[in-house]
Amino acid sequence: MFVLGIDPGLSRCGYGGVVREGAGFLARAAGVITTPAGEAVPRRLAMLRHELTRLLDELEPDVVVVERIFFRSNARTAMFVGQASGVALLTAIEHGCSVVEITNAEVKLAVTGYGNASKEQVQGMIARLLGLTEVPGPADVADALALAVCYLGAAPWARAAASSTTGSKRA
Amino acid sequence: MFVLGIDPGLSRCGYGGVVREGAGFLARAAGVITTPAGEAVPRRLAMLRHELTRLLDELEPDVVVVERIFFRSNARTAMFVGQASGVALLTAIEHGCSVVEITNAEVKLAVTGYGNASKEQVQGMIARLLGLTEVPGPADVADALALAVCYLGAAPWARAAASSTTGSKRA
Repeated sequence: MFVLGIDPGLSRCGYGGVVREGAGFLARAAGVITTPAGEAVPRRLAMLRHELTRLLDELEPDVVVVERIFFRSNARTAMFVGQASGVALLTAIEHGCSVVEITNAEVKLAVTGYGNASKEQVQGMIARLLGLTEVPGPADVADALALAVCYLGAAPWARAAASSTTGSKRA
Repeated sequence: MFVLGIDPGLSRCGYGGVVREGAGFLARAAGVITTPAGEAVPRRLAMLRHELTRLLDELEPDVVVVERIFFRSNARTAMFVGQASGVALLTAIEHGCSVVEITNAEVKLAVTGYGNASKEQVQGMIARLLGLTEVPGPADVADALALAVCYLGAAPWARAAASSTTGSKRA
């Protein structure tokens, strides 16, 4: 099963594709989609949609895991993340993938066993689980890989939840 | 010029289409798109996208005005509104419309001359401006009509801003 994690954002949207390999995991794709800050938001959302569609066409993941956002901090940034998240969920379901949303706290708990783990602890564990000698960067990529690993390895509840949200690819 | 206002939401997304007529305004379309609360969010976003596309195909508005959201209240609801807003902006720009975001405070100021006007004051003025004997309902519809009236009538700055965000319809 090929799982693509997406850390949604308008300026930077991280992605990371992971498969199980033996008792461990293997990263098969990782990167960041960016859109120019000077461009209008609707256009940036269309660019994000275009790049995500290209990515899904290329990778054909079975499951797409998108970070579930909560708005507690900067209201303006949060709005952009919410809009990007909506476009990511839409694009994935219309592509026929199973789609699941997972919170950052759930990732931390699943990957490190501790829901209040630091970003560094999660990144270190992700590097170890993926057999990498360095922490994958930038942070958006590490976060996206962590979402995929969480879904694949450490969170049976997430797999159960995902089955209810499978899209059908448009003709 | 035919302007479609959209008050984004996942449970209820209001829309209202308005044209200028003489010195006043005429409502040419109004309604609410709903998606079922029991359905998964990605599917609900796909339903919203589908209905918005049908609406744009039918109405062919020149400009789409989407309420710009700020997240101050309920974090979970705000996330859904942000996701719905992203899908609305994406759908409108991909349809080739000019797209502009306007805040609720800007609508209040433009429609009533007072940025802290009550919802009832705005609705009353919208009914008057559209030559209606009753306040249009439900509230999502009145809000959407107010966005369109604000753009058409009372806010030259909004028209100027919109010109930079015109989409090109996909083949």
